[in-house]
Amino acid sequence: MEKRKLGIAVTGLGGAVGTTMVAGLELLRQGAIGTEGLPLAESRAELVEYSAIAFSGWDLFSADLAEAAQAHDVLSHKQFVASAPALKAVRPRQAVASREFLANIEGDNVFEAQDHRAAVDRVREDIRNFKEEHENVVVINLASTEKLPLEDSPLFQALAAFERGLDRGAPEISPAMIYAYASIAEGVPYGNFTPSLAADIPALVEFAEEKNVPVAGKDGKTGQTFIKTVLAPALKARALKVDGWYSTNILGNRDGLALSNEDSLRSKVKTKHSVLRNILGYEVEDHIVDIRYYRPRGDNKEAWDNIDVTGFLGQPMQIKVNFLCRDSILAAPLAIEIARCLDLAARRGDGGVQEQLSVFFKSPMTSGGEPEQAFHRQEGMLEKWLGA
Amino acid sequence: MEKRKLGIAVTGLGGAVGTTMVAGLELLRQGAIGTEGLPLAESRAELVEYSAIAFSGWDLFSADLAEAAQAHDVLSHKQFVASAPALKAVRPRQAVASREFLANIEGDNVFEAQDHRAAVDRVREDIRNFKEEHENVVVINLASTEKLPLEDSPLFQALAAFERGLDRGAPEISPAMIYAYASIAEGVPYGNFTPSLAADIPALVEFAEEKNVPVAGKDGKTGQTFIKTVLAPALKARALKVDGWYSTNILGNRDGLALSNEDSLRSKVKTKHSVLRNILGYEVEDHIVDIRYYRPRGDNKEAWDNIDVTGFLGQPMQIKVNFLCRDSILAAPLAIEIARCLDLAARRGDGGVQEQLSVFFKSPMTSGGEPEQAFHRQEGMLEKWLGA
Amino acid sequence: MEKRKLGIAVTGLGGAVGTTMVAGLELLRQGAIGTEGLPLAESRAELVEYSAIAFSGWDLFSADLAEAAQAHDVLSHKQFVASAPALKAVRPRQAVASREFLANIEGDNVFEAQDHRAAVDRVREDIRNFKEEHENVVVINLASTEKLPLEDSPLFQALAAFERGLDRGAPEISPAMIYAYASIAEGVPYGNFTPSLAADIPALVEFAEEKNVPVAGKDGKTGQTFIKTVLAPALKARALKVDGWYSTNILGNRDGLALSNEDSLRSKVKTKHSVLRNILGYEVEDHIVDIRYYRPRGDNKEAWDNIDVTGFLGQPMQIKVNFLCRDSILAAPLAIEIARCLDLAARRGDGGVQEQLSVFFKSPMTSGGEPEQAFHRQEGMLEKWLGA
Amino acid sequence: MEKRKLGIAVTGLGGAVGTTMVAGLELLRQGAIGTEGLPLAESRAELVEYSAIAFSGWDLFSADLAEAAQAHDVLSHKQFVASAPALKAVRPRQAVASREFLANIEGDNVFEAQDHRAAVDRVREDIRNFKEEHENVVVINLASTEKLPLEDSPLFQALAAFERGLDRGAPEISPAMIYAYASIAEGVPYGNFTPSLAADIPALVEFAEEKNVPVAGKDGKTGQTFIKTVLAPALKARALKVDGWYSTNILGNRDGLALSNEDSLRSKVKTKHSVLRNILGYEVEDHIVDIRYYRPRGDNKEAWDNIDVTGFLGQPMQIKVNFLCRDSILAAPLAIEIARCLDLAARRGDGGVQEQLSVFFKSPMTSGGEPEQAFHRQEGMLEKWLGA
Repeated sequence: MEKRKLGIAVTGLGGAVGTTMVAGLELLRQGAIGTEGLPLAESRAELVEYSAIAFSGWDLFSADLAEAAQAHDVLSHKQFVASAPALKAVRPRQAVASREFLANIEGDNVFEAQDHRAAVDRVREDIRNFKEEHENVVVINLASTEKLPLEDSPLFQALAAFERGLDRGAPEISPAMIYAYASIAEGVPYGNFTPSLAADIPALVEFAEEKNVPVAGKDGKTGQTFIKTVLAPALKARALKVDGWYSTNILGNRDGLALSNEDSLRSKVKTKHSVLRNILGYEVEDHIVDIRYYRPRGDNKEAWDNIDVTGFLGQPMQIKVNFLCRDSILAAPLAIEIARCLDLAARRGDGGVQEQLSVFFKSPMTSGGEPEQAFHRQEGMLEKWLGA
Repeated sequence: MEKRKLGIAVTGLGGAVGTTMVAGLELLRQGAIGTEGLPLAESRAELVEYSAIAFSGWDLFSADLAEAAQAHDVLSHKQFVASAPALKAVRPRQAVASREFLANIEGDNVFEAQDHRAAVDRVREDIRNFKEEHENVVVINLASTEKLPLEDSPLFQALAAFERGLDRGAPEISPAMIYAYASIAEGVPYGNFTPSLAADIPALVEFAEEKNVPVAGKDGKTGQTFIKTVLAPALKARALKVDGWYSTNILGNRDGLALSNEDSLRSKVKTKHSVLRNILGYEVEDHIVDIRYYRPRGDNKEAWDNIDVTGFLGQPMQIKVNFLCRDSILAAPLAIEIARCLDLAARRGDGGVQEQLSVFFKSPMTSGGEPEQAFHRQEGMLEKWLGA
Repeated sequence: MEKRKLGIAVTGLGGAVGTTMVAGLELLRQGAIGTEGLPLAESRAELVEYSAIAFSGWDLFSADLAEAAQAHDVLSHKQFVASAPALKAVRPRQAVASREFLANIEGDNVFEAQDHRAAVDRVREDIRNFKEEHENVVVINLASTEKLPLEDSPLFQALAAFERGLDRGAPEISPAMIYAYASIAEGVPYGNFTPSLAADIPALVEFAEEKNVPVAGKDGKTGQTFIKTVLAPALKARALKVDGWYSTNILGNRDGLALSNEDSLRSKVKTKHSVLRNILGYEVEDHIVDIRYYRPRGDNKEAWDNIDVTGFLGQPMQIKVNFLCRDSILAAPLAIEIARCLDLAARRGDGGVQEQLSVFFKSPMTSGGEPEQAFHRQEGMLEKWLGA
Repeated sequence: MEKRKLGIAVTGLGGAVGTTMVAGLELLRQGAIGTEGLPLAESRAELVEYSAIAFSGWDLFSADLAEAAQAHDVLSHKQFVASAPALKAVRPRQAVASREFLANIEGDNVFEAQDHRAAVDRVREDIRNFKEEHENVVVINLASTEKLPLEDSPLFQALAAFERGLDRGAPEISPAMIYAYASIAEGVPYGNFTPSLAADIPALVEFAEEKNVPVAGKDGKTGQTFIKTVLAPALKARALKVDGWYSTNILGNRDGLALSNEDSLRSKVKTKHSVLRNILGYEVEDHIVDIRYYRPRGDNKEAWDNIDVTGFLGQPMQIKVNFLCRDSILAAPLAIEIARCLDLAARRGDGGVQEQLSVFFKSPMTSGGEPEQAFHRQEGMLEKWLGA
């Protein structure tokens, strides 16, 4: 395969996941780390090589990525020292923001747009700049979770209505949608790794199809939901009836802080919720999902699942799963693989919703109908597409 | 589908799993329980109906199944009362035994065979009696785990050598093999739900193929290994490198007692061990499997798994799974489904090793080559066969 | 010791804890169970014998205790059968209630008092009736957790103000306070096993001291807080700095339902919270306490604690405790022991707040000053008093 | 208090615990860390100040402590850099060793003694050298666990017999005993932080009393047993009957390797075992203690306890404790405090077994009779002595 240069433009570039992506591929290039955690490292599909990827993007904070990495404390001391020069060279552009949609976090690097159209234009200009530097560009959303707008607003149902909303400064339109719209307008694939509502509204799906631009989302499936979509199909296969599933999480990074705002939390919990009914085929009445901001762990996240099942003779059993994970360590390689796949889709000419990327998302976008949620069937979909 | 009568002849009928099978199908017939835990309850294949199944078999203890059920304490009080009359009517026949192969348990219901041939003849006679009562018969091994003989004994490599061993009373031949040989000789399918060496020696596979009798095994995949074969493929799919997997179990029933004998334990641990290399494609150096006899739980078993994985940037994470399960509640429905599938195979004329039943076993028999161990792929194999 | 008859009058008699108390002492009398779980079974103090205790009380539901026991499903089938005749004989009297203070639960057995004074009179009359039947009487509050009123209401600060509140029907006065007031007025000891605000307001402490009536509370220390007050002093002794303590609970009984109301939950969480600062001597910033109503468990409760500590060299460690407990099984014997101790205090002539009973409570009442919260020091206080 | 210089002479100085002690006090001196983990940091007794402590000792490996620290990987990168110069200056002397007593580990720094007496003389000479450099000296045993010799050997019962054994090269005498004997002979306090048999034989207790030298041991109470002696007294206080206690450990440091030898493991498990009967007053039949060498964790140890208890009405409950700890981080400060207390005892003129140090040991030495095992009562004993 001929070397292709891919530029990944990240919204929320200075966050823990963004800096981990950048540092990780730099350390991989140096040979300092292996490909652990990168699901498609051994794929034979014509995905761009890791060494051919470069990063740019936007953030509410102006700190360069070396500064950001120090604050996030994800890298080991040796890894920090080895990647710092490369990280120092990356400084996020001003981000489009809205206090309406993200209450707990205030940054110093905000583009004060006069109106929605001005914001769209600025983002498009930034993207065009990236395109000059790289053969191909993909936009990945890693910004903090926004408050969930009313999903069934008429504004979101058709492209024409959405564009009228842009024109008249409709308050329902969030920064995430601005970025998604701008990406599609520039013919650049868009992947939504957050639970925020972005390209997954009918209006923008229509736009992506019209422009034949690949889009995918939403909400990266890293820890607890990953385990959930692995276990639930197996419980179904064994006919173990799920009576209750209690999931709780503690995490202490900037994402956790954002989620300590009630409205942002609601977006997050929502994408985690529909999973079980979809896989099991019935409603689990006591399905509780809880996330708590808990500082002692920093970026290290802990998920605890308790599953109550009924087996033969109606007798109860319990499965408990305790996942001591690291948020950015799980998320960064998935975000990289999503970008590589979106880039491949664009090069193959596959536009619209990329359903075969479901394995990477908690709440997969589909071109219609219910998403596939069972991990192994999602994996099969991706393998088939990669092999195609 | 026309109703067919299936007789399941169980070695170890009076054990916790055996009595739970009998009680469970009786309670199902009464409408007192649902089909939770029965994986193939909704299959459309021509499997025999649960209500058309009857039980018989052998045990080292002569107690009728009502007595046995009281000792095992698996049923709730109401379930016991409702099934007691049916259980009382079932009394195990004398079992073929050997202190050489099962040290910790001594029974009052042993057939004192003069030699191997006499033991085989007795078992065959018992099976012929069952066949008179039921349209079809399947033998399922649920007896306590035997000491593992030398697997590569020349005696086990070919049918002719094995039969000469039978003739001259070779000490390597275990009771489990006697039952397997007798079943095949009678043209009756044989399923091995235990870790004991039985039909899974080349000699008996040869015999099964020659007689076109379906055989399957071994060691029912109930608790910890079930979870292991579900999680390991997902860890591989996410490129999370498994550095160590520590599995420990506590259980307090008769099976646990048998396993507190070192030699029996070795058989058990062995079938649990090869699983990871097979699924992950590399050797997990620190894969530890431990089983402890611990009385406070009785038939309630607890498995604790700790998995150390390395992710992106070489960073370590941990997954812990704690399964509070019930041995017989998980095992009984699987044993029933194995019997139904073996019966279907026989009616379809499929003889030899039934590899498509791998999903039910810790250490699946194959007609050659490595077994498939990943749970979801095993499930796919079975679904395909059932749909065929 | 001469046999004395003690009548325990329970508010919330038909709840899971109340019925378990009654059934338990009946089964103990029959010799069907041992004294496991009864902390003072081997004490040599002049506590009343278990066999000399009888029960009566009030409940929002009119069902007799046999009916109630069936609904709560705490007893084994055999225990139910053996205790049913005794349980059937106990039927709760009409309870004083207020939808203002307990929103989620609606009963059929409510005394519709015209005003506070009428309610007080009715309760006093009931207590006088009990006193005729038993040599001594103690009132124990086991009713569902009430919404927390404004604790610093001037009404609660002095007896005179409280009595004026009673006269003019002040809405701040809760049913729990009515019962506490009535008990003290009748010279009957009062123990508060719930988190509701009752005798622990200055006004009623004043009343108890004036009348020399023993009172104690509040909120029985059964599961998670028990473990917390055992572990925290040991962490302090080892100089392990507690950075965070995340406590979550799931429970599915009537108490859990009451707590699914936000206001009642607040009362509960409050009594759980101050414990750590008191023991450790510093504020644990990330001390999170969560309780969730989760039906699959019924009366079986599960508590999960995660403790983050810093040790030597500033290095972090974690302790996780998972307590699979049974709410009523832990609570009932403590409530019995509290009653026996209050009875002993009354016979010894010890009135006012019984601080030496702290070991039984999450939020111990004191006659002034901070309560002792470390379990082993509380235990020492009780032992000293019993030995006196 | 006037500043006193204390020299701690460590057997096994280059191990993880030894190097952590040295690095820790150096970092404390620099102000780089606080006193977390040091239980007696706030004691007002006349203990020597941390800044007045120096280290020396013996090890099977000749590496200086900076090299050793790098291998053990306990310090953070920054801590290593800050303490390396001080660590580099410490190089262990040749150790007395015996392949008979420690099979799995082979070192390059062994003193090849001609016989026991030559070994004793060499150690005494080393100690005399230390004494010249420091005002006071204490010997602490941190060497890998030795195989347990026959405890009731007549050789160990009296000093005269032991000394005859030294003379004739009796094979029952272990290196740990050689060090203990030499320390006492030099009038230097001896603390045994390992499970090896050392000063805790009647012969050496006799010697310590005769010479009025303080001795204490054995086996530092760091992780699982610490938790066990905290929880068990509380379970007893609540009359929760312990039916089973299953304790398992995984650890991957040099200690773990030593314990992967069956004989060394036996010593370790033994000191962990008697604890429960002592505290609870009855034998827990199913008390299982397991330790496994598991490399992925290195010095980070994990303990998992499962406790089955019976409560009121004979109903079962479970408590599970999962301790993610760090062996050296827990052990090093305890070893330091033991040394400070032994030094204080010597200065106070208290010779013989120092029973008041029980809180630091899994298997406390006593001057006769059963040891106190309950953590809070041990703590009380120490506080009383310190306050004296």
